[in-house]
Amino acid sequence: MDEKSFQARVEAIKADRERGASELARECLAVMAESARKARVQDEPELRKLLRQRAMRLMQTRPSMAPLHNLLNRWLELVDKEPDGGLGTLRVQASRYADELMEFSLRAVAETASQMAEHLGPNKILMTHSLSSTVAAVFRGLKEEGVAAIVTESRPLCEGQELATRLSEWGVQTTYITDAQMGLFVSDADAVIVGADSLLPDGSVINKAGTLLLALAAHDQDVPFYVCCESFKRRNENMGELVLEAMDPAELSVSQLPHVTLENIYFDITPARLVSAWVDERGVHFNTPAGSDE
Amino acid sequence: MDEKSFQARVEAIKADRERGASELARECLAVMAESARKARVQDEPELRKLLRQRAMRLMQTRPSMAPLHNLLNRWLELVDKEPDGGLGTLRVQASRYADELMEFSLRAVAETASQMAEHLGPNKILMTHSLSSTVAAVFRGLKEEGVAAIVTESRPLCEGQELATRLSEWGVQTTYITDAQMGLFVSDADAVIVGADSLLPDGSVINKAGTLLLALAAHDQDVPFYVCCESFKRRNENMGELVLEAMDPAELSVSQLPHVTLENIYFDITPARLVSAWVDERGVHFNTPAGSDE
Repeated sequence: MDEKSFQARVEAIKADRERGASELARECLAVMAESARKARVQDEPELRKLLRQRAMRLMQTRPSMAPLHNLLNRWLELVDKEPDGGLGTLRVQASRYADELMEFSLRAVAETASQMAEHLGPNKILMTHSLSSTVAAVFRGLKEEGVAAIVTESRPLCEGQELATRLSEWGVQTTYITDAQMGLFVSDADAVIVGADSLLPDGSVINKAGTLLLALAAHDQDVPFYVCCESFKRRNENMGELVLEAMDPAELSVSQLPHVTLENIYFDITPARLVSAWVDERGVHFNTPAGSDE
Repeated sequence: MDEKSFQARVEAIKADRERGASELARECLAVMAESARKARVQDEPELRKLLRQRAMRLMQTRPSMAPLHNLLNRWLELVDKEPDGGLGTLRVQASRYADELMEFSLRAVAETASQMAEHLGPNKILMTHSLSSTVAAVFRGLKEEGVAAIVTESRPLCEGQELATRLSEWGVQTTYITDAQMGLFVSDADAVIVGADSLLPDGSVINKAGTLLLALAAHDQDVPFYVCCESFKRRNENMGELVLEAMDPAELSVSQLPHVTLENIYFDITPARLVSAWVDERGVHFNTPAGSDE
């Protein structure tokens, strides 16, 4: 993979609105695996240098998404620990570590969804916002168990449509609403389940803009609010300043007017006090007044 | 105005998504004035009967909007009190009462906006949801006073675009966002101001869907939340069952899918506990723990 192809993949990851944080983190690992196998370099030190530099560039593509940082960092640690054994061996080992981490991530997401589904049990009405692959997996896991869904469109690009399409294919009874109707429908739900792009050290949740509103409405109506995300979503202090990514205002589909600024911030932060429990691959961690109860 | 023309006006009022409750109430009065002047009837009793029947039909066009009921009811009372004086006199008097009530309504809206503007004062950042003619009048009243606006698009038909267009023409610095971004921007505002379609006896507010979310976010961030509506918006016990109108799901612009129900409820109810003050033509009435403080 030459610099030009690599740069094209970087740009595609930056612009991606379809895939969530876990999926994009695995895409980054796939890019690193391919770089390890195919980068045109003379020797092992040159490959080590190039891989490190590319991993650092990928980490910066989506600052609101912790898993990119976490999985690439874990991969770099493994590559750094790999003893010098020649160019061929490093290519094989570095790409194998990437493949293994991708599998590890997939298993963590599947296990998280499974923990959530088991906790919720049959015949539940579940409300969600945006499109999370983990939340989609919860619905898939419960589709034979009488689950029903309330799905928001999730402006500006309405990825709720994609979730509604999948739910429809699985035969899940689904109510599809505008984001503005969240307050009207949340009390119809037995629980709200959302994914996350990142989890902050204090338990606050970075997720698609509108999640905070749904959490406020759920809290107000005493509907449990669950955050489903594998532990790779945890942000730590080393990730630098927290940035909520803004995307192209053209996505709002409204013409530019004098004195009017269009804002299109993609993520908001839901404080931990509005979360009933965090669910990851290890289980359900309830929010207690004193903090998280493992 | 014959039955066919009247029915066309009724249908237009039912389908209207552009105008708010006060404007549509005045449109109803205009229909009654025209009916009084032009209805083809033989004598005064026949006109009285027809006017009453038409007013009752108009009252039922928009069940979420109290002013239609209030203004038409007030008009009917005036017509009923009008002594028998012949067909010509009744035509003149009934249409004059309608014209006077339209002026009364316009003055009440203008005075409400003026009370709100005066209370807020200069150099404020004000956030709103949907398009309220009263709220628009507040911005117009403060446009030379350094007011700035944060405006939501207000799905499904995005009447926030119309408000942003007016604000742009008035030179008001405006931030335009998706409804989902409310939680991100409310803390930038000095106050939230919304109109109402109806005000319930306990002070709860029926307004465009999404208002409840903005009220929850404002409450959570300690941003004052003002409801600006003239007293014609007050609902009373005689208005029958409260209905939150649902509109055509086609407005969501998403294709129908098996097992998926599209919902397009236009209004939600914001409980009185989330309102900082109600503003009408008589002044600003603060919410105190014991209830409304006149």
